[in-house]
Amino acid sequence: MTTASICTIGDEILIGQVVDTNSSNISLALNSLGIKVTRMVSIGDDHDEIISSLEKELSRNEIVIVTGGLGPTKDDITKKALAELSCATGYRTDEVQLEIVRRILSSRGLDVLDINLAQASVPDTCEVIPNKLGTAPIMVFRFPKERFGHCATLYSLPGVPFEAIGAMEDVLKDIKATHSLSDIYHKTLMTFGIAESALSKLIEPWEDSLPEDMHLAYLPNALTGVRLRLSIYGGVREHQEARIEAELARLRPVLGEYMYSDQDDTLQECIGRMLASAGKTVSAAESCTGGTIAALFTSVAGSSAYFLGSVTSYANSVKTGVLGVPEEIIAKYGAVSSECVAAMAEGVRRLNGSDFSVATSGIAGPGGGSDAKPVGTVWIGVSSPKETKTYRMVFKGDRKRNIERFAANALNILRKTIVNELSL
Amino acid sequence: MTTASICTIGDEILIGQVVDTNSSNISLALNSLGIKVTRMVSIGDDHDEIISSLEKELSRNEIVIVTGGLGPTKDDITKKALAELSCATGYRTDEVQLEIVRRILSSRGLDVLDINLAQASVPDTCEVIPNKLGTAPIMVFRFPKERFGHCATLYSLPGVPFEAIGAMEDVLKDIKATHSLSDIYHKTLMTFGIAESALSKLIEPWEDSLPEDMHLAYLPNALTGVRLRLSIYGGVREHQEARIEAELARLRPVLGEYMYSDQDDTLQECIGRMLASAGKTVSAAESCTGGTIAALFTSVAGSSAYFLGSVTSYANSVKTGVLGVPEEIIAKYGAVSSECVAAMAEGVRRLNGSDFSVATSGIAGPGGGSDAKPVGTVWIGVSSPKETKTYRMVFKGDRKRNIERFAANALNILRKTIVNELSL
Repeated sequence: MTTASICTIGDEILIGQVVDTNSSNISLALNSLGIKVTRMVSIGDDHDEIISSLEKELSRNEIVIVTGGLGPTKDDITKKALAELSCATGYRTDEVQLEIVRRILSSRGLDVLDINLAQASVPDTCEVIPNKLGTAPIMVFRFPKERFGHCATLYSLPGVPFEAIGAMEDVLKDIKATHSLSDIYHKTLMTFGIAESALSKLIEPWEDSLPEDMHLAYLPNALTGVRLRLSIYGGVREHQEARIEAELARLRPVLGEYMYSDQDDTLQECIGRMLASAGKTVSAAESCTGGTIAALFTSVAGSSAYFLGSVTSYANSVKTGVLGVPEEIIAKYGAVSSECVAAMAEGVRRLNGSDFSVATSGIAGPGGGSDAKPVGTVWIGVSSPKETKTYRMVFKGDRKRNIERFAANALNILRKTIVNELSL
Repeated sequence: MTTASICTIGDEILIGQVVDTNSSNISLALNSLGIKVTRMVSIGDDHDEIISSLEKELSRNEIVIVTGGLGPTKDDITKKALAELSCATGYRTDEVQLEIVRRILSSRGLDVLDINLAQASVPDTCEVIPNKLGTAPIMVFRFPKERFGHCATLYSLPGVPFEAIGAMEDVLKDIKATHSLSDIYHKTLMTFGIAESALSKLIEPWEDSLPEDMHLAYLPNALTGVRLRLSIYGGVREHQEARIEAELARLRPVLGEYMYSDQDDTLQECIGRMLASAGKTVSAAESCTGGTIAALFTSVAGSSAYFLGSVTSYANSVKTGVLGVPEEIIAKYGAVSSECVAAMAEGVRRLNGSDFSVATSGIAGPGGGSDAKPVGTVWIGVSSPKETKTYRMVFKGDRKRNIERFAANALNILRKTIVNELSL
């Protein structure tokens, strides 16, 4: 099996101010070709460390993807280290990338500076794949078998996440053209509302009966629930796909209503598909989730087909003035109550004229809790043409995590309501 | 200087389905003690790879932090590898952690399963720091000088992000009690509205004149702009702090209005501070940003003091019906127009009764663009007691990136408006 390593270069990752999202995106791309990522390494802007780490990764993998350290500013030294690693005798200017640099800067109305032009200069040992999305070129270094005991290819990508993702399309093409690859097959089932340990117990008999060459991974996520990912490396694709499907067919009835999708997607995508195909619409009224539910809906391209809008009613005056929650309800039961969240859900459904609506009111923390309503308490309301129902849940987490859990559970309750009412 | 390495264990990271946020959080925590993180490594759930990688990191660093691979499910094998690495002769049950496991599960209304109880079982070679937030204990392995050429400590943390963050508090206490640490000092200035390369050119004379022992990092982020981080390792804290402040005093006038904060914070925190101290309020009307601006405001604890609420007017019927945008405006100019976004900003300010408001209408993509209004176009409106102004910007990115840029630039324009009108 072809293996790969992903190396991220840059002090900004090591000092913790930037979260490395490139590695997971690159890994997903490599996985799609059946390439197994064996290690991810992050190192600083240190010449010797870059060279020794890359030598080690190249000696253990046929493919090494490097990101970062190519910016125009003075703290980036990756290019110099790659020149030394590949025994370059000098630099050359890549004319195609130079033209792209000029075009990008002029389209942004920026002057072309010397440090921008220098980005089109590359070690004479590399091939260049033009980077259409940014100024730093994609550099490809091919090492002969003598150097590391096997043929090895190093791809150097820009560190800016959307440029790195774009670059991977061209890198995959190059890998396919230059490597003979074995197959991989993954299939993911999405679950929500069951903890990893309980899920493991629930499916233990099934998991214990899996063939040895299949691997099951539990991937918990606050916003999407626990993903169950079943995979096989190698073999004939059609055959392996059928084997995985057969195992999953046995698993589905065990998971029951915990499973919401057999595509690798999210609650909001699943809801969107159901609403779009039924020609129904939804809106949201958010207090404690503060716009997160709306942002999740609208993160999906095409969501305007079913998501009409939302009201973030953070202040009580907005709950009463915009959503029409009666002041007596807030006075008598408080804003974090079944009565308030029901009135919010009905209010926003009426206001926006949607078929369904979802509402939240709770206490994300860190302050604002009481014995009766501790931090982490949320009331969720769902209103439909048939009825309005409310649900109370309590979570333990920090503010960010509570907001995520509130929003995800509201979406899950909305999803179940839609499934029931549309008889899906 | 004390150095550390962070190792993340788990196939879920390597196959790219989970983004590793633990490493950056752990690094921030270690940095606060002046510990330099030299490498971050992610490896799979593979016994031999775990042992060989950890041996290598322990031989190069005094501190190694391991996260992940401790879940109750069958795909986690870290504990077994740690037992072998530390030459354990067996396992013992940690009674304090066992009690926590029972308490957590019962508070969640869950049955206590054998696989949960097994989490309190640890190799007999480790000390345990109880994990109050979850079921997997924090394990501390202390290796004598003979083993790796220097005293080395390995901390094994749970992989669940909020548990890992919580665990680091106790780990820092242990590190302080057992290591003699040198100082580090960082100071960060936040800029927005200037690209990394232009910023580098702008401050080049200042950067070239920095003393050799100071290090400047450029940390670009779509939501917060480019952070400039100046740091020194070692030396006497008070002296180094004064030296950094002196250099930054020379930099501030060069940055001018690009700089929005000398604290390591965000546009929404900066806006929140200004509004809260002036006793003013804000609301938002969002079309293309779909709730992201509201979610950014409400991500800040205490934002209810100044953020009243928002309307996500995704459908035109919500723009007219809820925000009062005249139908003629949408018919004549379209929803993505100066006229529409001005009416949205004024509408939400009137509706919610806020002092300031911000509104967005644009085309995030991938579809929906035209020659006159390409994908990436956004109109931003800001309304204040004094006036309503609108701004047009065009970005090139995918949907997610466009939404982030739209929202961040809207916040930055709002920030400048507040600075001007409140004469801050």
